[in-house]
Amino acid sequence: MHVLIIGAAGMVGRKLAESIASGESLAGQPVEKLTLMDVIPPTAPAGFTGEVVIKSGDIADPAVSTELVSGRPDTVFHLAAIVSGEAELDFDKGYAINLDGTRHLFDAIRHEGQNAPYKPRVVFTSSIAVFGAPFPDKIGDEFFLTPRTSYGAQKAIGELLLADYSRKGFFEGIGIRLPTVCIRPGKPNKAASGFFSNILREPLSGQEAVLPVDESVRHWHVSPRRAVGFLRHAAEIDLEAVGLRRVLNMPGLSATVGEQIEALRRVAGDRAVALIRREPDPMIGEIVAGWPRDFDPARALALGFVGDASFDEIIRIHVEDELGGRIGG
Amino acid sequence: MHVLIIGAAGMVGRKLAESIASGESLAGQPVEKLTLMDVIPPTAPAGFTGEVVIKSGDIADPAVSTELVSGRPDTVFHLAAIVSGEAELDFDKGYAINLDGTRHLFDAIRHEGQNAPYKPRVVFTSSIAVFGAPFPDKIGDEFFLTPRTSYGAQKAIGELLLADYSRKGFFEGIGIRLPTVCIRPGKPNKAASGFFSNILREPLSGQEAVLPVDESVRHWHVSPRRAVGFLRHAAEIDLEAVGLRRVLNMPGLSATVGEQIEALRRVAGDRAVALIRREPDPMIGEIVAGWPRDFDPARALALGFVGDASFDEIIRIHVEDELGGRIGG
Repeated sequence: MHVLIIGAAGMVGRKLAESIASGESLAGQPVEKLTLMDVIPPTAPAGFTGEVVIKSGDIADPAVSTELVSGRPDTVFHLAAIVSGEAELDFDKGYAINLDGTRHLFDAIRHEGQNAPYKPRVVFTSSIAVFGAPFPDKIGDEFFLTPRTSYGAQKAIGELLLADYSRKGFFEGIGIRLPTVCIRPGKPNKAASGFFSNILREPLSGQEAVLPVDESVRHWHVSPRRAVGFLRHAAEIDLEAVGLRRVLNMPGLSATVGEQIEALRRVAGDRAVALIRREPDPMIGEIVAGWPRDFDPARALALGFVGDASFDEIIRIHVEDELGGRIGG
Repeated sequence: MHVLIIGAAGMVGRKLAESIASGESLAGQPVEKLTLMDVIPPTAPAGFTGEVVIKSGDIADPAVSTELVSGRPDTVFHLAAIVSGEAELDFDKGYAINLDGTRHLFDAIRHEGQNAPYKPRVVFTSSIAVFGAPFPDKIGDEFFLTPRTSYGAQKAIGELLLADYSRKGFFEGIGIRLPTVCIRPGKPNKAASGFFSNILREPLSGQEAVLPVDESVRHWHVSPRRAVGFLRHAAEIDLEAVGLRRVLNMPGLSATVGEQIEALRRVAGDRAVALIRREPDPMIGEIVAGWPRDFDPARALALGFVGDASFDEIIRIHVEDELGGRIGG
C-alpha cells in the first residue's frame, strides 16, 4: 500500500507518519511506500523499511496536487491547512490553501481516475470550528454548520466537496472533525486555545503556565495519540456503514479547566498545580466562549471511533509519549 | 438606487425585474437604474421610467463579475445557476457556474470595496436541495446540510461563502432557500419536479397533464408571486435582526398531490381535474422520495417573510398573473 500524508510536517501529521512507519501497515495491509508532503519538507520517520518520499510545495498550486496524485497513493490523508488565526488575518491565503488547495487535490484525484480506474481512500481532517455559538450544550450529529471564522467556513466547504466527490464515486472520502488536540507538545504559542495545553504541559516539565480564563470554562479535547487513532480508523472503516453523510464529529472528552487541573493534581501533584498562574484575559475569554464545549458523537461511537477515557489518561499519554515517562523539570 | 439582477432571464428573475420596474422602488427607495444580466440577454421590463442596462455573459468568467460590480449596484440579486439536473450531468459546468461564479461575484464586490467604501446588499437564492433524505418530517432551522446532488452541494457552499463574506463586512449578504416554485408558467419540461406544476397549469388551460406519482406524495411549494416577495423582503430586511446566520428556510406551503388536486377542483371544477392522467413512473417516484416534504421555518416567519396561505391561493395567483383571470382552454 502507498500512503500519502499531506501536511506531514504538522504535529498530528508527524505522529500519524510515525504510527504508520512503526506498524508498517494500515487497514491490515503492509505499507510499502510513504509519501510525506508539506509546505516545508517533512522529516522521514525512523525505522521504516519501506520507501519514503519527501516532498514540499504549495497545495494552492494545482500542479502540485496533480504531481502528488500521479503516484496513485491508495490512501490520502489531507491534513494541510492554514490555521484559524492566520486564515482570519489573511483572507486570500486561507481560501487559497484551505478551499482551493482541497479542491485541487480532489480534482487531481478525479482527473487521475479519468485516465485509468482509480478510487483511493481520502481522509480529510475537519474541525469543530465548523460550529460557532450559539449552540446546544451538547452538539448532536445533525446540528447545522455555523462557522464564525473563515477557517471554519473553509473546512465546512471542504466537507461538502468531500461528500459530493465521494457520492459521485471519484474517491472514498471520509471527513473527521477533530476536537482540540491536548496536550499539544512544543512551546507555548499565541493561539487563543494554547492555554488548554500550556497549563498541563508546562507544569509537567516544572515550568510556569498562564491560565487566562475561569476554571468553569468547558472545552472538547483529544490526545494526540487518539487523534492519530481516529485518522487510522477513518482509513480502515467500511464506508457502506457510514453512508452518504461522510463527515463525523469525533468522540472527544468534554472537561472544564477545573477538571483539567484536578487531573493534573492527581497525576503530578500539588507542586505541578502550583505552577499555574491565573492571569485573566477578557479577550481570550470572549473568543473561547464562542467555541463548542461538548458533543454527543453518537455516530462516531457507533462506528468504532475511540476517544480518551479521562483527562488523567490524556496527561499520562503526554508523559509517556513526550516526556519518556518522567514528570517534573 | 441601482439594482442588479443576475439571472434576470429566468422565470423568477424576470418576475422580480417586473415587480421592481412596476413599483419603481425597493426598500422604500426609488430605483433609478436596473441592470439585468444573464447568459442570454434578459428582456427589459415594460413601463420602467428609469435606466435599464441589459447585459449577457458567463459568470464563470471573473472579468464578467468585475465589470458588473464596477457599476456599484446598491442591491445585487444573485439568481443565476445551472439547475439540478444539468449540474448532475455536467460536473465541471455546475461547479464553474454555481460555485466559481458565485465566488467571483463575491470577490468582485470585496475587491471593489478595497478601492473605495462599498457594501451592497447581496440577496442569494439558495434551495431546499441543500437538504437530502433522510430528514425529519418537518425540517427545522438548525438541521444540517445534507445535499444529495452536486447542485445542492454548490448551493450549500455558496451559503457558507455568503455568510463568511458578510461576517467579514465585505457586503450585506442574505440567503433564502426557495421552496419549489409552483405553478411554474410555460410548457411542461422534463425536470423531475415538473409534474407538481403540470397537473395544475395544463388543466387550467384545458390541456391534459401526466401525474407520475401517488397522490400521497408531499412537497414544499411557493407561488412565483410569493417567491418574488421573499426576494424583495430579503433586500429590505434589517440584517441586525438576522444576525450572523444569514441563510433562511423560506415559508413554503406543504401539500400532498391529493391536496393540490382538491384545490384545483375547488378553483376550476371536476372538468379540470378529469384532465389529469395517472401514469406512475417509479423512477420519478424514487427521486421525489429524497426531497424535503415540510419545514418549520420559524426564523423566516419571525422575520416577516410571508408564504402562500393555501393551494387555492397558489392556483388563483396563476390564474391572475398568467391567464388574465380566465380558466379553461
